[in-house]
Amino acid sequence: MSGFVSFVSAGPGDPELLTVKGAARLRDADVVLYDDLASGAILDLARSGANLVAVGKRAGRRSTNQQHLNRLLIDYAATGARVVRLKSGDAGIFGRLEEEIEALRSAGIGYEIVPGVTSACVAAAQAGIPLTRRLTSRRVQFMTGADVTGELPADLNWAALADPEATTVVYMGRRTFPALAAQLIAHGLSPDTPALFGESLGHAEQQLARTTIAELAGRLTDAGPATAATVILFGPLAIDHT
Amino acid sequence: MSGFVSFVSAGPGDPELLTVKGAARLRDADVVLYDDLASGAILDLARSGANLVAVGKRAGRRSTNQQHLNRLLIDYAATGARVVRLKSGDAGIFGRLEEEIEALRSAGIGYEIVPGVTSACVAAAQAGIPLTRRLTSRRVQFMTGADVTGELPADLNWAALADPEATTVVYMGRRTFPALAAQLIAHGLSPDTPALFGESLGHAEQQLARTTIAELAGRLTDAGPATAATVILFGPLAIDHT
Repeated sequence: MSGFVSFVSAGPGDPELLTVKGAARLRDADVVLYDDLASGAILDLARSGANLVAVGKRAGRRSTNQQHLNRLLIDYAATGARVVRLKSGDAGIFGRLEEEIEALRSAGIGYEIVPGVTSACVAAAQAGIPLTRRLTSRRVQFMTGADVTGELPADLNWAALADPEATTVVYMGRRTFPALAAQLIAHGLSPDTPALFGESLGHAEQQLARTTIAELAGRLTDAGPATAATVILFGPLAIDHT
Repeated sequence: MSGFVSFVSAGPGDPELLTVKGAARLRDADVVLYDDLASGAILDLARSGANLVAVGKRAGRRSTNQQHLNRLLIDYAATGARVVRLKSGDAGIFGRLEEEIEALRSAGIGYEIVPGVTSACVAAAQAGIPLTRRLTSRRVQFMTGADVTGELPADLNWAALADPEATTVVYMGRRTFPALAAQLIAHGLSPDTPALFGESLGHAEQQLARTTIAELAGRLTDAGPATAATVILFGPLAIDHT
């Protein structure tokens, strides 16, 4: 069976933060399957004759059934097309990459993964701070604020997450952050722990707010559904100087 | 005071895995201060008249004193030069970025951080697997295997690190991994936990080994000092299929 799929990490959506290899794969693609969170200016890199297919997973809802998406990937690749599957951030971090890889393996279709810049790194860079700190934050951890049902995942490791010496990055966590923060504080993390809220990073409408976990939880209570990609960092962040 | 410093994340060293913005900053630079781990082909992107200055932190030893390096950054920026400080991987992750930022702030010199692809994402991509998994690995954490003295950091959070449902990425951990693995196993993590060892990722001499934490610890015992950048992943990795 012919066909090949390149999983391309789009980064935050700013074409400048795409890798050189990712940009080349987009330029060479016959078909690009993209999410809403990996759309916009970055798609202008594709050649004019390329088939651009929205498979639209919006923040908070899933538009295309995963099985249908897997089928699309296989069907396009089977035509011999150079298929790019564009995923926001780094494709391997909370991108549900595994389901698509499994489908390709089952169908005997080759693939590659082009890594990219994950939102955690973009948020810290835009705030002008490092993610790790030599003495006070030597561990950094990424979690998702939403499981498949959209709720805060059950059975979280509170000893890991409420550690005052780690920096935690919450992906897709805007709606559930008030519940997360309440649990973190109940497990001993200070309400005054510095937090950074990022939305639409790398886009013209970028928002970046320096706050604390308690203040951010209050602000996000009843904030309505997310309409853009968000990322939340908390821990011993170096944000007091900026 | 004039001058501006761009901290550019080099990624693993393969020019293809640099961001478009990072490549542009390198092309425009008057001066590039680079580590040994961010050298090679990537420096060919600088224009022919650029001043390339090795400040050489080799894996396991530090060649240029941090204070001297800070002084170099300030002195070059003060001449009005476009200075690029090239750091391997993502500059904000275990890159000792904060010390250099603090020095620039004290001197009143502006800077920007160009985020990049961190080794964890490269290793997973090269192995053809995601870093996170929807049901079995919903938390991913990065740690350094070496503190300023080169030893395994003290006071590690074992509840976080020995969690069988998290994927852990150890940067600069080759020499101390046998000690780390012994502690992980003592804290309840299975010796058969899948592990992935990556060395010189993105370079011609790339090594990628699929193993377990116990087997890898045995292999790295008395292995001698590291001569290349290494990264170790362990946890419920999706490596059984490859």
